[in-house]
Amino acid sequence: MEFEESGIGEECGVFGCVAAGEWPTQLEVAQVLTLGLVALQHRGQESAGIVTSNGASPPTYTTHKGMGLVNTAFSPEALLKLRYGNLGICHTRYSTTGISELQNCQPFVVDTLHGKIAVAHNGELVNAHALRKKVMRHGVGLSTGSDSELITQLLAFTPPMEELDSPDWVARIKNLMTETPTSYSLLVMFKDVIYAVRDPYGNRPLCIGRRDAINHKKRNNMDDTEGWVVSSESCSFQSIGAKYYREVLPGEIVQISRHGVKTLSVVPRPEGDLPAFCIFEYVYFARPDSIFEGQMVYTVRQRCGRQLAIEAPTDVDVVSTVPESATPAALGYAQQSGLPYIEVLCKNRYVGRTFIQPNTRLRQLGVAKKFGALTDNFAGKRVVLIDDSIVRGNTISPIIKLLKEAGATEVHIRVASPPIKFPCYMGINIPTKEELIANKPEFQDIAGYIGADSVKYLTVEGLVSAVQEGIASLQEKDNISSCNKSSRKVGHCTACLTGKYPVELEW
Amino acid sequence: MEFEESGIGEECGVFGCVAAGEWPTQLEVAQVLTLGLVALQHRGQESAGIVTSNGASPPTYTTHKGMGLVNTAFSPEALLKLRYGNLGICHTRYSTTGISELQNCQPFVVDTLHGKIAVAHNGELVNAHALRKKVMRHGVGLSTGSDSELITQLLAFTPPMEELDSPDWVARIKNLMTETPTSYSLLVMFKDVIYAVRDPYGNRPLCIGRRDAINHKKRNNMDDTEGWVVSSESCSFQSIGAKYYREVLPGEIVQISRHGVKTLSVVPRPEGDLPAFCIFEYVYFARPDSIFEGQMVYTVRQRCGRQLAIEAPTDVDVVSTVPESATPAALGYAQQSGLPYIEVLCKNRYVGRTFIQPNTRLRQLGVAKKFGALTDNFAGKRVVLIDDSIVRGNTISPIIKLLKEAGATEVHIRVASPPIKFPCYMGINIPTKEELIANKPEFQDIAGYIGADSVKYLTVEGLVSAVQEGIASLQEKDNISSCNKSSRKVGHCTACLTGKYPVELEW
Amino acid sequence: MEFEESGIGEECGVFGCVAAGEWPTQLEVAQVLTLGLVALQHRGQESAGIVTSNGASPPTYTTHKGMGLVNTAFSPEALLKLRYGNLGICHTRYSTTGISELQNCQPFVVDTLHGKIAVAHNGELVNAHALRKKVMRHGVGLSTGSDSELITQLLAFTPPMEELDSPDWVARIKNLMTETPTSYSLLVMFKDVIYAVRDPYGNRPLCIGRRDAINHKKRNNMDDTEGWVVSSESCSFQSIGAKYYREVLPGEIVQISRHGVKTLSVVPRPEGDLPAFCIFEYVYFARPDSIFEGQMVYTVRQRCGRQLAIEAPTDVDVVSTVPESATPAALGYAQQSGLPYIEVLCKNRYVGRTFIQPNTRLRQLGVAKKFGALTDNFAGKRVVLIDDSIVRGNTISPIIKLLKEAGATEVHIRVASPPIKFPCYMGINIPTKEELIANKPEFQDIAGYIGADSVKYLTVEGLVSAVQEGIASLQEKDNISSCNKSSRKVGHCTACLTGKYPVELEW
Amino acid sequence: MEFEESGIGEECGVFGCVAAGEWPTQLEVAQVLTLGLVALQHRGQESAGIVTSNGASPPTYTTHKGMGLVNTAFSPEALLKLRYGNLGICHTRYSTTGISELQNCQPFVVDTLHGKIAVAHNGELVNAHALRKKVMRHGVGLSTGSDSELITQLLAFTPPMEELDSPDWVARIKNLMTETPTSYSLLVMFKDVIYAVRDPYGNRPLCIGRRDAINHKKRNNMDDTEGWVVSSESCSFQSIGAKYYREVLPGEIVQISRHGVKTLSVVPRPEGDLPAFCIFEYVYFARPDSIFEGQMVYTVRQRCGRQLAIEAPTDVDVVSTVPESATPAALGYAQQSGLPYIEVLCKNRYVGRTFIQPNTRLRQLGVAKKFGALTDNFAGKRVVLIDDSIVRGNTISPIIKLLKEAGATEVHIRVASPPIKFPCYMGINIPTKEELIANKPEFQDIAGYIGADSVKYLTVEGLVSAVQEGIASLQEKDNISSCNKSSRKVGHCTACLTGKYPVELEW
Repeated sequence: MEFEESGIGEECGVFGCVAAGEWPTQLEVAQVLTLGLVALQHRGQESAGIVTSNGASPPTYTTHKGMGLVNTAFSPEALLKLRYGNLGICHTRYSTTGISELQNCQPFVVDTLHGKIAVAHNGELVNAHALRKKVMRHGVGLSTGSDSELITQLLAFTPPMEELDSPDWVARIKNLMTETPTSYSLLVMFKDVIYAVRDPYGNRPLCIGRRDAINHKKRNNMDDTEGWVVSSESCSFQSIGAKYYREVLPGEIVQISRHGVKTLSVVPRPEGDLPAFCIFEYVYFARPDSIFEGQMVYTVRQRCGRQLAIEAPTDVDVVSTVPESATPAALGYAQQSGLPYIEVLCKNRYVGRTFIQPNTRLRQLGVAKKFGALTDNFAGKRVVLIDDSIVRGNTISPIIKLLKEAGATEVHIRVASPPIKFPCYMGINIPTKEELIANKPEFQDIAGYIGADSVKYLTVEGLVSAVQEGIASLQEKDNISSCNKSSRKVGHCTACLTGKYPVELEW
Repeated sequence: MEFEESGIGEECGVFGCVAAGEWPTQLEVAQVLTLGLVALQHRGQESAGIVTSNGASPPTYTTHKGMGLVNTAFSPEALLKLRYGNLGICHTRYSTTGISELQNCQPFVVDTLHGKIAVAHNGELVNAHALRKKVMRHGVGLSTGSDSELITQLLAFTPPMEELDSPDWVARIKNLMTETPTSYSLLVMFKDVIYAVRDPYGNRPLCIGRRDAINHKKRNNMDDTEGWVVSSESCSFQSIGAKYYREVLPGEIVQISRHGVKTLSVVPRPEGDLPAFCIFEYVYFARPDSIFEGQMVYTVRQRCGRQLAIEAPTDVDVVSTVPESATPAALGYAQQSGLPYIEVLCKNRYVGRTFIQPNTRLRQLGVAKKFGALTDNFAGKRVVLIDDSIVRGNTISPIIKLLKEAGATEVHIRVASPPIKFPCYMGINIPTKEELIANKPEFQDIAGYIGADSVKYLTVEGLVSAVQEGIASLQEKDNISSCNKSSRKVGHCTACLTGKYPVELEW
Repeated sequence: MEFEESGIGEECGVFGCVAAGEWPTQLEVAQVLTLGLVALQHRGQESAGIVTSNGASPPTYTTHKGMGLVNTAFSPEALLKLRYGNLGICHTRYSTTGISELQNCQPFVVDTLHGKIAVAHNGELVNAHALRKKVMRHGVGLSTGSDSELITQLLAFTPPMEELDSPDWVARIKNLMTETPTSYSLLVMFKDVIYAVRDPYGNRPLCIGRRDAINHKKRNNMDDTEGWVVSSESCSFQSIGAKYYREVLPGEIVQISRHGVKTLSVVPRPEGDLPAFCIFEYVYFARPDSIFEGQMVYTVRQRCGRQLAIEAPTDVDVVSTVPESATPAALGYAQQSGLPYIEVLCKNRYVGRTFIQPNTRLRQLGVAKKFGALTDNFAGKRVVLIDDSIVRGNTISPIIKLLKEAGATEVHIRVASPPIKFPCYMGINIPTKEELIANKPEFQDIAGYIGADSVKYLTVEGLVSAVQEGIASLQEKDNISSCNKSSRKVGHCTACLTGKYPVELEW
Repeated sequence: MEFEESGIGEECGVFGCVAAGEWPTQLEVAQVLTLGLVALQHRGQESAGIVTSNGASPPTYTTHKGMGLVNTAFSPEALLKLRYGNLGICHTRYSTTGISELQNCQPFVVDTLHGKIAVAHNGELVNAHALRKKVMRHGVGLSTGSDSELITQLLAFTPPMEELDSPDWVARIKNLMTETPTSYSLLVMFKDVIYAVRDPYGNRPLCIGRRDAINHKKRNNMDDTEGWVVSSESCSFQSIGAKYYREVLPGEIVQISRHGVKTLSVVPRPEGDLPAFCIFEYVYFARPDSIFEGQMVYTVRQRCGRQLAIEAPTDVDVVSTVPESATPAALGYAQQSGLPYIEVLCKNRYVGRTFIQPNTRLRQLGVAKKFGALTDNFAGKRVVLIDDSIVRGNTISPIIKLLKEAGATEVHIRVASPPIKFPCYMGINIPTKEELIANKPEFQDIAGYIGADSVKYLTVEGLVSAVQEGIASLQEKDNISSCNKSSRKVGHCTACLTGKYPVELEW
């Protein structure tokens, strides 16, 4: 399923870059930031923004924001405008509301008593409403409904107020973290430093990459480092020549500067609480080549497919996929079941969000516009089709019709994740409860409803075990200092599947 | 001289509208606001914005802003979006900095503890720097350099803080007015009310208009009123079918609602200070059909022309104008001197700010692109050419060359205002002191410098008397309650001509 | 009246330029062509096109066309693309149909057996229908309905066919002129030559300008000439530093090259036929600083105003104008009548063709959007308002209402041209016969219909005499060789006023 | 390889639709044409055009063309404009030259003596130069360099000229086909008929689809037919609810009207010549779900992969693909070799043609922007990577580097088509001979050049047999009348691989 059809979407991606040594040169910083954004484009297509800093005292910040994809929002002129920075942060945003305006584009830059700060945020504050009241009670007017503006104002006025000449941003960030438990992965840029912050529950991802000098004759020590990047997902590192360094830990505040990466503080969770990394990052949002908790997303999806084959086997001739996101799960299903893997659908890569509103008769053909049937591959055969999720149930139905008309004798659906039943308040846009197929009466006979010969979902337990089994063994490889490693625990947020939220919701 | 060439410019125009009775219907409010903006377009061409309110409790505000002229910034779709309001305020902005962004577009809307307010502002706070420090010291982050955002934050946190359920906006506005003496004409919209505010010195204009029912069989009492409008200039009233009602007085806070217009307070100036209405509104900025202090701007300009003929007569054959803004002064000069008035220049109305950057040889032809010489009207004659002002001196020179080449035997320049010598800190964008021709060595022999046979300016005393002589006799006609009328004094800001600023400048 | 409101419009403007000696350099040719187009913008605002030639053998032509005003259609990149030419022709087009497409933009370039030619055309072929049939009967497909494409195909196949290596373009142009009597002013570019052609009736204007070297120490002989330009109107010469040289005569084919200007042929009219230069070029279309038949358009309009004062005097207090096109006539009326000239209307120069479609109530305010009343100038007075023409009668009415509401005691309308009653088939877009106010029953009581106290028009005889009285005496000044001068006769097309067409119309 | 990177590209796609019975309704015709174009978008992304006809006598044609992808070129307004047709043809164009203008967009519409015709063309006339000369010698001017305009003019004047009232379009088309042997698939629309024409060599594809009534209770006879479509590729049929009917045969002229499909003529090839269907349609251009000569393109590509495994086996651990076009061949290679198929690359679907021009250091990272490595799938393994073709060799190299850096111990390249060595003059845009890697010295050690452990290509014989082995057995299924079927022979153009062109090239 594509995001636009399922109605489920990530809210944002954040990315930052600090040039160290000779790399990146000033011009390169804007390019690196842009390439980083392009690699995070799947996390948000509504708007994009970059803020660069020249690192001076006082710093000069340069900002460019635009609607649409990165390629649309950033012209060569815009990049040129940004070239004087040697560090910067950027953001790509998903349209959660339909009402989207340039005004809401991140990063936000505000002038404070101690100078200007820039903030980029991925997530959603569970107690945003109460925090807004608090800020406004202090006499601050808020010009947007954005959590990110709220965060900037909280950082601006948070007591204790230090002496004018020495702002203690870390104290302010820590204070912010005591005010709101989750969810946020945050980049705060001040002068020549980026603070990378992940909420105590680690709900949204954030990781650090390093770029070594191209010609490094010396041993691989810090002196060879040309620069540091920080990103929502590690998939962005390859595209700018950097390598995965490590994750920012839940609750950690990391300072990134030309002098390197330093943990300033780790804000703890309440006693007994586990981390709550969003399990749907694995299932659905992340690019398959990204690494979370030491494991590649593709591998987890493949493992989900294997688990699905164990939980929900089928007596069919071939296994196939709804391209492209369900392919790893389909290959896993095929490997586990021993059934041959084939392709049954061919995707028209030019079909995007289109204005064309066909009449009812033509709308029945909707999916055929996007997919063509590879008829000869499956005519006369029984097919099990793997999908990564079924959210509203309105796109799988025409695909099944297409396959049956093209000659499939049976079409069974296996879904590599459990049914979504509950809203998310931590940064994911999910259709209303009423729109979710799992909450509709039709779900009782979903196979009949969508025209399949059978439909089965992965269990929550199956999903959690497919995700977590890889972590323990892999943790050793992780590039984390031993003191941190010992305190690291495993836990995932499955609220949209189970209704169990990691923190109580205040409204 | 056109604004774009002289480099002198107004910063803004503001406009508001409240529907009373049956007019304007909801759809009409957005149209009335747009037409009002179009009529104020000469006060700012960079961007335009409208905020409408449905007047409900809590109110829903709808905002649209865009870059460029009103016609560019507001598509039919944008207007449709705004149709649910029955009151609204809007703003058109002049680019003072070259760096212009949608982010700086007014009106600003902020959410406060007491609900959302919208603010549109014309002017410039003389103590902006100190006020920014004060706001930030309170812990507020400021996201733009705009005075208008500063005003919204001052309104949001200004003590005394009232009970939550009953915000006292008037007290907050009065408090704001004690914090900053000038210059501002301000519209503050809250729910179903617009507060129209003019600073105690009355530096920027603001006036009120009323729209009567089209079919009013009854006597013209308040019951016939269909709606109220408030505007930087009265020229906008004709275009929406409203009539001039009265000026907002210096220091006055007027409440405009569907129930009518009410003076809530008049904040006084320091003992002994006179009002300081910007005299360049008469000379240069305002549309000639606007009314200030009871007199039509066109009439004042004509009077300046007459005064100029008295102060600086010439022995020539014909009087003419640099179209179109100097025409009233030229006609006044002709009437006073008895010389015949003719046209010598024809303007190409399709020449705007153009991208075409001709090489040096073609640049010498620059003015000829904009003006054609009406050769047969003046060949072989001596011409006195009236201009409204000479700011940088780089546009009059090629006009003189054009006329001489076309056969004028003599070209004398008479300027219907005194030389500009000083910067303005109250809302007018004036070239740097160094750019002003009056401060350059060339000014000693300006006639030689620009190629004229003689150049003379109106004196400051001549200008002030031309402006003020019409006011006394006309005040009686003004539609102001008697208590206010008695307290009304006459005074004008001539700082850019004399260096005498109405208040001390804090930096 | 503005074109857009009256619904009457010129179809096109043409302009060409040949660099001679050192001027204009290659880069300058594109700039000169663009500036020429900007000066002809009033003749067409729909689209613009430029074709330059490098003059080589075979030549390379570069083309750029775009919709909208010249400034919109030509970006700096487009100009750069055109820089390699040292001669070129260009065209600006008026939307006559509402259906406008880039495909119809001129100039047209076609490849023929003898190489590529480029054609720009102003006018309308009276026998276009028959010519299309003829061309298609020859087996040619026509891809547009444009006369200009028809002309290019006629030039391409017209017999006699010469030897392949020596195309005789002049013979082909002469042949074209025998096929169609009128109306066309034509520029045909081939390699390094522009042929400037005017139809035998001289219905559309065309004239030649010369640019002398800036530093010409030597006597003003041909060696000093830097380049030649050819244009629909001489108003474009000032803006590129050129001087009026002479008109192209009716029926004349002029060759313009770097070697100068040469008459190749003059195709005669049928015995007894007079020239038929469009009289509405004087009344309405041309820029006032243009020169036709040796006289400035402004002067003719002023003379029309004088004649109108003789034919239709009024007992009023003041004379005024509907700005800006009627101002010369109004000044003429004032001079002749001895009445004082004042301004009563102030124009909002930012009001263009706007998308805003006000509802009925607001539409009644339509004109007020464009004009403001200068109330104090005429309140309590009787006004005679001069307009240049009344075509459909729907714009003068709200102006009268505006003036009366603002206090004019009487408003009399005097129109400086006769009523338009008949269609034009020679290049002018006129509303349908039914739309013309002069053909409506309301015309019987037009004063009552539009709300004026009286309405009078200039007579056809009055107009013709105002136009022709200046020509005889002025002809001597004209820069035409004596042989041509002797054969020059005076005659004007008044078909839209009288229904007498210069040639029989074939359909 | 993607088209944009390899520099190899199809020139066009054509599509047509005739409504029969009740389907498609008028509005639907424009939608069907648009959806058809979207499905052919891979054949051309530069511009798109639609012409509809209302089928009346004389017909009204409506045209819309635009630059860019179909979604960009066709707004809802444009579609609305086209809604009055009940038949139409359309075209999508590939930019072969870099100089692209709206003027070159197809379909071309020309007015002829017998009425207007519209023409859409896929292909390239091998004797275009000689034909241009011929047309121009007849006295026709050509306004573009397009073969399609040339075809329209040839159709317009081609003798024998019939009586005026009865144009014999078929005779004209047959005459055209005697003038030029190849390559063209052509749609000619006249009034209520579309003529679908394929050149005698069948170089470009063209096939017919039928749409049955949705509720067809009656047996499937012609009465149930709701409409006919004709398309470059059958992949477009699914997206509009139509079914594959049959191919247009080499040399065939098919008339499509509301009354059905009728063969009017089959123009023969010279004695002894075989058909010459472009073999690269199978290898590269066509969508995998399209059907040519009775076989699905996907199946042929899979067969190429199998053949490649036979011809060029490798001793490795896993088989993978350069997504997405090489996947069928990779799966075929895996099936034949028994090696496991895995994914090694993840594609960023948001990377398009981008303006970003990274500096040299960043350019080295170019491919990583587009592909991410699925590290864990292949680290420590030997990989054979299947590509569909290597044209210039500049994109596979960084992919190999990416895989090796991510841990692949060996990377072997197998290419599922032979090296391209010669230019195509029949409609395919291929880089210059010098740019083709197969003609460079580096080709001698291509593995070393691109950094692979080995590189092998499919042989020409292997490709031809993989293509042709499926045809014989499948022909029986084809929906062709028996007389035609008997005459059908098999043959393919391999000119770009072998230098053997199907016809002599005239220049």
